Amino acid sequence: MTRNRPLILIVNDDGIDSSGIKLLTTAMHEIGDVFVVAPNINRSGSSHSMTLHEDIFLEKINKDFNYFTCSGTPVDCVKSAVNKILPRIPDLCVSGINHGSNHSINSLYSGTLHGAMEGTIQGVPSIAFSHLNYSEEINLSPFKAIIKRVSLAVLRHGLSDGITLNVNFPNIDFSDIKGVKICQQGTGVWTENFQLIKEEQNRKYYKITGTFRDDKNDINTDSWALENKFISIVPISINCTVPINFTELKYLEYDF
Amino acid sequence: MTRNRPLILIVNDDGIDSSGIKLLTTAMHEIGDVFVVAPNINRSGSSHSMTLHEDIFLEKINKDFNYFTCSGTPVDCVKSAVNKILPRIPDLCVSGINHGSNHSINSLYSGTLHGAMEGTIQGVPSIAFSHLNYSEEINLSPFKAIIKRVSLAVLRHGLSDGITLNVNFPNIDFSDIKGVKICQQGTGVWTENFQLIKEEQNRKYYKITGTFRDDKNDINTDSWALENKFISIVPISINCTVPINFTELKYLEYDF
Repeated sequence: MTRNRPLILIVNDDGIDSSGIKLLTTAMHEIGDVFVVAPNINRSGSSHSMTLHEDIFLEKINKDFNYFTCSGTPVDCVKSAVNKILPRIPDLCVSGINHGSNHSINSLYSGTLHGAMEGTIQGVPSIAFSHLNYSEEINLSPFKAIIKRVSLAVLRHGLSDGITLNVNFPNIDFSDIKGVKICQQGTGVWTENFQLIKEEQNRKYYKITGTFRDDKNDINTDSWALENKFISIVPISINCTVPINFTELKYLEYDF
Repeated sequence: MTRNRPLILIVNDDGIDSSGIKLLTTAMHEIGDVFVVAPNINRSGSSHSMTLHEDIFLEKINKDFNYFTCSGTPVDCVKSAVNKILPRIPDLCVSGINHGSNHSINSLYSGTLHGAMEGTIQGVPSIAFSHLNYSEEINLSPFKAIIKRVSLAVLRHGLSDGITLNVNFPNIDFSDIKGVKICQQGTGVWTENFQLIKEEQNRKYYKITGTFRDDKNDINTDSWALENKFISIVPISINCTVPINFTELKYLEYDF
């Protein structure tokens, strides 16, 4: 390993074989020493879940590079990397590139973002990258330069404790993108579709799919930025407390 | 179903057979019409995860009451309840009582809290209840009165959009509890333990366990309240944006 090069952990939720993590890995090899620890299967929608009720496995899958698969969730991958694989705490953790949106309310469901958030919990500056197109076939290579730029900026500046960056790329031609905006999380709605697959004894089996629709959002949100041809970056907190005036809830407080 | 009684959805992550959900169900029968939709197995650590890559099943398990199991996560349970089981959007969603802490950083991993947060996303005032003792054997019945009190208060006052209440009970004799405090999420650290179970071919199998330790926390946090014999209530946001001055991150913004 070369001295003075940053140590970079790469994770995702689409799994080790996705084209998104391959491009992210190519980009990170250009700026640091790379360890990839990614799920062996697609783990989309994992959020911050952990594997508590079964064992997980880790497997090195490349002779020449530090590429590992993990049978657990993105959070398991990061915990495994820090505890069992990496030679030291890394300088940066990047997650993605996810094939599909992680903006707006999707930040709650996203395994990509929550892999990066586990990096933040472990004390590592961490960034999640996602593209609003859900196809594995899309050409992500034009985004390599901006990914490197954001990553290098975070390596240089660091991030405040407890903050993860959630970066989303709009689903338009790269040449039409207008710039990069720091945003707040927007609001949107999933409408679920429960498709009845079969009935057996007293059980009804369903396949759940859904359609996402952004609300009409303010100019300061990721939803607005993406709709208006910007790359959005939302600083996400591992502290989930509502920033409200707590007097609103004083009616619940009392002494026994 | 009796007219004018509130319609209450109950979920958890420990599974339909846990003693915590049984006490919560007893309490809710005293104030409303109850539907239980809970995982068929223990789903602790599910966070906000969804089942996207396999079918889920729903099964009514009681002739006389509206008790259902779901093979998915707590979030799947709530989405299934709202889409396939309930006659209308419920007036209240309660989750728990979880056997184990969901305060401090545990709010990220908790399936109990995130089941309730999915209730919030669906537009339902939602509350998660957890007890810091991990044992199924503990007597939770002294907490029935406070659970009813908080639930009735929320039914009466409502909750602002996007806010879920995260209630934790300290692990002390009920008679020693001093009161109820509205708090912010505290900070704490999990130290993971990776126990090597076996090696097969190139795979190493691990069982992950961990030990949680609260940091030294301010008087306004759930960690402090619980340590000092109070019940903690943290208002949790489904909007994960950091409440910071965004100028801190302006170095990342630019126009193409």
